[in-house]
Amino acid sequence: MHTIDHLRAAGLSETELTGGTLTVRSPIDGAEIAKVHQTPASDMPAIIAKSKAAFDAWRRTPAPQRGELVRLFGEELRKAKDDLGAIVTLEAGKITSEGLGEVQEMIDICDFAVGLSRQLYGLTIASERPGHRMAETWHPIGPVGVITAFNFPVAPWAWNTAIALACGDPVIWKPSEKTPLTAMACVRILERAMERFGEAPDGLIQLAIGGPEIGDALATSPDVPVVSATGSTRMGQIVGPKVTGRFGKPILELGGNNAMIVAPSADLDMAVRAIVFSAVGTAGQRCTSLRRLIVHDSIKDDLVKTLATAYASLPIGDPREDGTLVGPLIDAGAVDRMQEVLAQAKSEGGTVHGGAPVTEGVPAGGAYAAPAIVEMPEQTDTVREETFAPILYVMGYEDLSDAIAMHNDVPQGLSSCIFTLDLREAETFLSAVGSDCGIANVNIGPSGAEIGGAFGGEKATGGGRESGSDAWKGYMRRQTSTVNFSTELPLAQGVKFDI
Amino acid sequence: MHTIDHLRAAGLSETELTGGTLTVRSPIDGAEIAKVHQTPASDMPAIIAKSKAAFDAWRRTPAPQRGELVRLFGEELRKAKDDLGAIVTLEAGKITSEGLGEVQEMIDICDFAVGLSRQLYGLTIASERPGHRMAETWHPIGPVGVITAFNFPVAPWAWNTAIALACGDPVIWKPSEKTPLTAMACVRILERAMERFGEAPDGLIQLAIGGPEIGDALATSPDVPVVSATGSTRMGQIVGPKVTGRFGKPILELGGNNAMIVAPSADLDMAVRAIVFSAVGTAGQRCTSLRRLIVHDSIKDDLVKTLATAYASLPIGDPREDGTLVGPLIDAGAVDRMQEVLAQAKSEGGTVHGGAPVTEGVPAGGAYAAPAIVEMPEQTDTVREETFAPILYVMGYEDLSDAIAMHNDVPQGLSSCIFTLDLREAETFLSAVGSDCGIANVNIGPSGAEIGGAFGGEKATGGGRESGSDAWKGYMRRQTSTVNFSTELPLAQGVKFDI
Amino acid sequence: MHTIDHLRAAGLSETELTGGTLTVRSPIDGAEIAKVHQTPASDMPAIIAKSKAAFDAWRRTPAPQRGELVRLFGEELRKAKDDLGAIVTLEAGKITSEGLGEVQEMIDICDFAVGLSRQLYGLTIASERPGHRMAETWHPIGPVGVITAFNFPVAPWAWNTAIALACGDPVIWKPSEKTPLTAMACVRILERAMERFGEAPDGLIQLAIGGPEIGDALATSPDVPVVSATGSTRMGQIVGPKVTGRFGKPILELGGNNAMIVAPSADLDMAVRAIVFSAVGTAGQRCTSLRRLIVHDSIKDDLVKTLATAYASLPIGDPREDGTLVGPLIDAGAVDRMQEVLAQAKSEGGTVHGGAPVTEGVPAGGAYAAPAIVEMPEQTDTVREETFAPILYVMGYEDLSDAIAMHNDVPQGLSSCIFTLDLREAETFLSAVGSDCGIANVNIGPSGAEIGGAFGGEKATGGGRESGSDAWKGYMRRQTSTVNFSTELPLAQGVKFDI
Amino acid sequence: MHTIDHLRAAGLSETELTGGTLTVRSPIDGAEIAKVHQTPASDMPAIIAKSKAAFDAWRRTPAPQRGELVRLFGEELRKAKDDLGAIVTLEAGKITSEGLGEVQEMIDICDFAVGLSRQLYGLTIASERPGHRMAETWHPIGPVGVITAFNFPVAPWAWNTAIALACGDPVIWKPSEKTPLTAMACVRILERAMERFGEAPDGLIQLAIGGPEIGDALATSPDVPVVSATGSTRMGQIVGPKVTGRFGKPILELGGNNAMIVAPSADLDMAVRAIVFSAVGTAGQRCTSLRRLIVHDSIKDDLVKTLATAYASLPIGDPREDGTLVGPLIDAGAVDRMQEVLAQAKSEGGTVHGGAPVTEGVPAGGAYAAPAIVEMPEQTDTVREETFAPILYVMGYEDLSDAIAMHNDVPQGLSSCIFTLDLREAETFLSAVGSDCGIANVNIGPSGAEIGGAFGGEKATGGGRESGSDAWKGYMRRQTSTVNFSTELPLAQGVKFDI
Repeated sequence: MHTIDHLRAAGLSETELTGGTLTVRSPIDGAEIAKVHQTPASDMPAIIAKSKAAFDAWRRTPAPQRGELVRLFGEELRKAKDDLGAIVTLEAGKITSEGLGEVQEMIDICDFAVGLSRQLYGLTIASERPGHRMAETWHPIGPVGVITAFNFPVAPWAWNTAIALACGDPVIWKPSEKTPLTAMACVRILERAMERFGEAPDGLIQLAIGGPEIGDALATSPDVPVVSATGSTRMGQIVGPKVTGRFGKPILELGGNNAMIVAPSADLDMAVRAIVFSAVGTAGQRCTSLRRLIVHDSIKDDLVKTLATAYASLPIGDPREDGTLVGPLIDAGAVDRMQEVLAQAKSEGGTVHGGAPVTEGVPAGGAYAAPAIVEMPEQTDTVREETFAPILYVMGYEDLSDAIAMHNDVPQGLSSCIFTLDLREAETFLSAVGSDCGIANVNIGPSGAEIGGAFGGEKATGGGRESGSDAWKGYMRRQTSTVNFSTELPLAQGVKFDI
Repeated sequence: MHTIDHLRAAGLSETELTGGTLTVRSPIDGAEIAKVHQTPASDMPAIIAKSKAAFDAWRRTPAPQRGELVRLFGEELRKAKDDLGAIVTLEAGKITSEGLGEVQEMIDICDFAVGLSRQLYGLTIASERPGHRMAETWHPIGPVGVITAFNFPVAPWAWNTAIALACGDPVIWKPSEKTPLTAMACVRILERAMERFGEAPDGLIQLAIGGPEIGDALATSPDVPVVSATGSTRMGQIVGPKVTGRFGKPILELGGNNAMIVAPSADLDMAVRAIVFSAVGTAGQRCTSLRRLIVHDSIKDDLVKTLATAYASLPIGDPREDGTLVGPLIDAGAVDRMQEVLAQAKSEGGTVHGGAPVTEGVPAGGAYAAPAIVEMPEQTDTVREETFAPILYVMGYEDLSDAIAMHNDVPQGLSSCIFTLDLREAETFLSAVGSDCGIANVNIGPSGAEIGGAFGGEKATGGGRESGSDAWKGYMRRQTSTVNFSTELPLAQGVKFDI
Repeated sequence: MHTIDHLRAAGLSETELTGGTLTVRSPIDGAEIAKVHQTPASDMPAIIAKSKAAFDAWRRTPAPQRGELVRLFGEELRKAKDDLGAIVTLEAGKITSEGLGEVQEMIDICDFAVGLSRQLYGLTIASERPGHRMAETWHPIGPVGVITAFNFPVAPWAWNTAIALACGDPVIWKPSEKTPLTAMACVRILERAMERFGEAPDGLIQLAIGGPEIGDALATSPDVPVVSATGSTRMGQIVGPKVTGRFGKPILELGGNNAMIVAPSADLDMAVRAIVFSAVGTAGQRCTSLRRLIVHDSIKDDLVKTLATAYASLPIGDPREDGTLVGPLIDAGAVDRMQEVLAQAKSEGGTVHGGAPVTEGVPAGGAYAAPAIVEMPEQTDTVREETFAPILYVMGYEDLSDAIAMHNDVPQGLSSCIFTLDLREAETFLSAVGSDCGIANVNIGPSGAEIGGAFGGEKATGGGRESGSDAWKGYMRRQTSTVNFSTELPLAQGVKFDI
Repeated sequence: MHTIDHLRAAGLSETELTGGTLTVRSPIDGAEIAKVHQTPASDMPAIIAKSKAAFDAWRRTPAPQRGELVRLFGEELRKAKDDLGAIVTLEAGKITSEGLGEVQEMIDICDFAVGLSRQLYGLTIASERPGHRMAETWHPIGPVGVITAFNFPVAPWAWNTAIALACGDPVIWKPSEKTPLTAMACVRILERAMERFGEAPDGLIQLAIGGPEIGDALATSPDVPVVSATGSTRMGQIVGPKVTGRFGKPILELGGNNAMIVAPSADLDMAVRAIVFSAVGTAGQRCTSLRRLIVHDSIKDDLVKTLATAYASLPIGDPREDGTLVGPLIDAGAVDRMQEVLAQAKSEGGTVHGGAPVTEGVPAGGAYAAPAIVEMPEQTDTVREETFAPILYVMGYEDLSDAIAMHNDVPQGLSSCIFTLDLREAETFLSAVGSDCGIANVNIGPSGAEIGGAFGGEKATGGGRESGSDAWKGYMRRQTSTVNFSTELPLAQGVKFDI
């Protein structure tokens, strides 16, 4: 099936794909796929106003009915899975299995949000006053601005949208400028569900394609109470304060600098497989990609050797082809940046294995590079920074406490893991004195979270949580109520005030 | 008992009360109580470093043991209740019953936090992969900066501190410059508990007395992951973005512009009592003080008349004396500001009842004013603003939906209430289309929350939550973990990546 | 569409419908529909053993995968809704809309259980010992025996089954002998989902058609840890102790004697509609049917008059026909029993309106009766007993506290409601001193619960809970764990025991 | 301090201790301590009626106020700890540290219940109907009958009572006939708290001393909705069905047959200490005592040798003396029974180490025996039965799955543990295919639970849960409510019924 067929199947028309000012190129071969129309920043007030109007209707729709829309969305996604996966591959360069996996994540979150739609549990609470009833209730909060990044062009939006819709909030989506087609396809799929649903208000989901000025409009509008932004730490440092400064709620999913500690007792076969997938999958461009390997001195050299061998045999090339495990980076700039960083690491004492740009055996015009392993003498500034490329730094350790200290000594706090079969090591890693990340795993890589757990990280990762657990609370407002049904008016804390 | 005796009983020494650069005056009579030593801003790095060191020990102390310290604190507070209440009255000008009520709130939160210390519940979560275990755990997060305001000099600090200590976090407290003595007394009382406890690390609780530069040090330090600030919206607009900008977590409790809707079916006797307490208590200087009355047209004139009569007979004067219901404002500036605002309101068409400064029958040198009722033709800009003084604006309504719209049409979103005996009206007010405040009550005033519910508000109130429910989560970090105890390495979402 | 077509569409074959020893008759016209094969009691050990074997596999299947089976079941139910609804109508005599509503409830619980399958939340808990981790986890418990009654032939089974499957438990179903066809159809529909799912173990769902000996086998087998039984209080009194006596967990949903209090402020139009539906729907054979009306003296006579008029015009007849609101009772015995009870009530001073058997304008051979209103001078023994027929007793009250006392003065405790617009009355009814039932509503009838709330009742209703909230815990076993990952061995409560 | 002094300090008078029909003897030396007055079974109706009356008042007392009584009880227990601990030692024969530990558990549960008293969280739930509010609330349920056993004469009562009181329920306590003095002392201590509290209704806590007829009165009374019984499986098999048969809620804490699996990787030093404490503490008479040791074949012989040596040096004797680790069994009958069981085990192939009655170096008249280790060739019927004595059966295993199968192959399901440093083994033991017990620990013994976790077990242990987590729900009734505040009357599941 050709590209254009997937786009057609997803419902995108010729008119939408041509004549616009935003050129969309595939990282696979650099070829132009479409010229997409951008949203003028001047449209944003009207878009936000429309969202606000949609909110007024949507919040009155009972949550289980809202859940029914999400259920239908899940059904439509199931039908469109292959097409949408293919567009993800085309536009973001992911291998087919990962493209489909990302769509599966969308489907999973729909199921989860449908369940939530009959919960959205608040609390009834024991009151200290006779004849009083106390409760905490969660209500819809208003339009949610969703800003997403190229590397996960669809799943994070779906997390936000499935939950937001169930919670009673409309969504305005600003996708990455590098992946507008997946966004357009997603909205089209959701629209099919809305049509079947019948009663979704106009403006419930809106797309705003464009650059930072679109994000700025969302970040600064007092009518967008929640802004959920996935992207770089730098972006978060701009968006976060803007939202807070006007008393909105930011949900930030920013950079990670994810590490794995490999202990002497680790099942090394499993570790190697986990490392390669986590470090190399999506060409090292996942926010949860493995970037740092902290290996016990006793096994470090052997492990590096094994990894280097494994890396050497990785099939690099067109992500649409069966067998390919390493597709392209997002663009040529990313390959260049990778080379710069490798040079920096070398200058700091690093020994680099692999990492060179690849031009043979890959589609011409694409942005390919061999994944790199870099043995570092210590955790340098270069290591502390997140580079969005398949670079894996390797450092040694002697005591677990040192390994944990090194692990935590980076600005970011997204994902982390340890490979060990030793109970004490594993539990220590998960304890209050262990990993300081939002995600901490044992014997699985840092990448590939299930949607049932809250997703997000601490420190420079931004602190936001999406997806499972009670992350939905970020999309609602909390109301604490006391109802006095007695004929008395006692004050709390025994205060007396008799007029 | 004299002032000095209460201070002595609370453990404050002559040295601490004299020779400093910060003059403490009582709003009761403007008399100087003490000259307190301020914390140089240059000390803040050391203070924060000490807190960080204390954190390292405290997070290793099991939570139920931490709870035991909080329990002992509650015991010490029970013993010191009268003294501490008297100092609150002295320094903040509250009537005796309210001063004691504030201490009672401290005691209550201790009991609550002790209970929490054996909970701090995370979740175990069903995993989609065989041989995998998934969990969400809450861990201590680090030093908590607490910034408090003069009007509640002790309770909000205690909310933060009891919860933070149970959660494993040290506290650095910046009290209002107007109420350093209550702060010093509180710390002294907590120190007694720490002494009995025996194993609290040095630096677990630290006091930093001073101006905005202290707050700024807390807001900008990357080593203070949580900053909980109570105060004006203006302050929050400065502090919030600073904390977010360095990826800390702000907990903001800012201004309120709290209203009551009085419906035709209201129990007017109860309503009148609730209104007078809520509007006049603490001389209108509670963040939850009643500031707006939205009354059904059919009962408005009668209600205003009744209120004006009640207001006219309110005993104004020395808050230490039995029978006094209206004590002083915090200082002469507050009385002046009140007069300006009343003039403004008049210029916008308001009819003012009461509100004049009071100098007779009150201690000389104090900042007294008669509480004011202002009938407004509509909700003007002056009404939309929070003035920290006993001014109650009254507006009429015909339909409940209009009343709710007027109610919500202010920047703030702290507390709110309706007086009605009509079930439909009450439930509508509490529903998704009702009050947009963090607190919404029925048949009790906006003021005087129980500690079991989460306290805080939406919009310009800052969005933070303290005290009950799961507000404790704001003082911890969340960790989502998956432990693979199988010998397989399945990827989530069915992704395949076989090397 | 003919009966046989619906049965065929549901997948039932000629062989299954003929040649058996259990004659199935429709209450609509008493006609024989099928002769169904019964499960010999001697088969039960093998059935239970097969269920146990299925359990061993099913508990290893991750919960979200189990949820996927339930999701597919929901899809199949959506497809089969019309057919299954028609079979419910045929076999249980419900009007079409109610038959479909019951199937909708099955669909709803599937959505809910899918959501649960990524939750099944246990707790992580703060431990008092350093280096210790504490958690509570919920695990699958084993085969669940489900015993259902004729009046809700499919929904309660679906509640149990959707939840049990998500929780990891196989199900053995003993349906009412009066409604085996709906049961057979349900299993067939679930089997379609299992086929699509692919990996469901053999014996995951088994049907055992027969009499009390089947129920007894489930109640007494130590290999059936949970027995969920819906039916009469008499049945519960037999089954409950048998299950408890061998340390199984009974979930009992037994009789109700559901009342409505109608207060002077009630919206009488709404009340009348609610009363008629609740008392007359399913010909008064719901476990939540309204059986007692406790009306304020001031409005009692008028209300009875209005009701009597409404009752007189109710379309009684073939439930398959559009417009019919009152279908047949389950069989002729039920009509006879209704007549006896009406006679008893009369002998206790009751004034009976309606209630006579109906033979004209209804299908010959069916068991039809006009719904009855019975004004009672007081709450007599006859009123205190549940009669499974459309009899509504009406009693007066003066004070709400008397009404509540009368309300609670019956053995059963399933469902209840009040109609009032008075906030105080409504809240009192819901408070600790109000209704003692498991379900307590305001301004809706006792009948027709949503699946998001836990369903079940107190006292002689048996105490079980099914469907929403945390009712799923009844289908799992709870494990409290402490993991010591330190190198010390401290004892709880500070006990010392040094060898 | 002498016995009598502790009794006096606890508030027991001469009159109470003499002249009764129940002779209380100390297991330490068999000496008579008191002759206590028994409650005639004929008094039970009045006692229950009084409790019911107390309930009516207590349920109206707000939960946080009820919590205040529990807090005061905790304070009084702290003061009386030494005395009450000494009486436990005297009457139950526990060593001093264990006696005090049991009182500490009472104190801990009070702190926990105080925290609960501002929670007792129900849920607010999303409703599928517009203008409807759904909630689940927990209300007080009524008198709670508490039946306790001699081996833990005070803690289980305190668990039940602290929680029940916070939940709004009065308590009627039937202690073991062997330990009435501790019970009398406990009630006296609680009465001190009630006196300080001031407003506790008469009859809130009542003591009924006597035999099975007292338990029977509680089990069969319809006015005692909850009966919480700790004791033997045999007792539970009698009490449980009686309570269920009248639709009460039994909370059963029955026998355990608790095992430890010792894996090859276990920290054997820690394991040995854990084994000795768990098997020998309280002379093997804890419900959580370690009774079965399932040891990997590779380390079994060594471990038995080490244990035998450790056992040989255990100080047996007067539990009041410093250094004693093994006190008396409860009476001579228990020693006899132990001898019989050892003989049985021997006849089944067991090799017995230790276990003989001890008469030298111990107080004359006491019931002392040396703890026994019994190597068994397999898990025989004798091993499967719980014997309340310090007998530890040891069996070998080769594969962990066999060890778990053997572990679960007993009727009881209370507590369990594994000693291993292997993550996979530990997690497998805690997983759905691991231990089937209510308590499952890693690297700590089966004995000595923290009060924060729910306590209780599965299968013949009775299924009840007490103490932490949401065990409090067993002491309340659940109410699911829907409030319609709209002017429409939609039915759930879209049912139509228009009259």
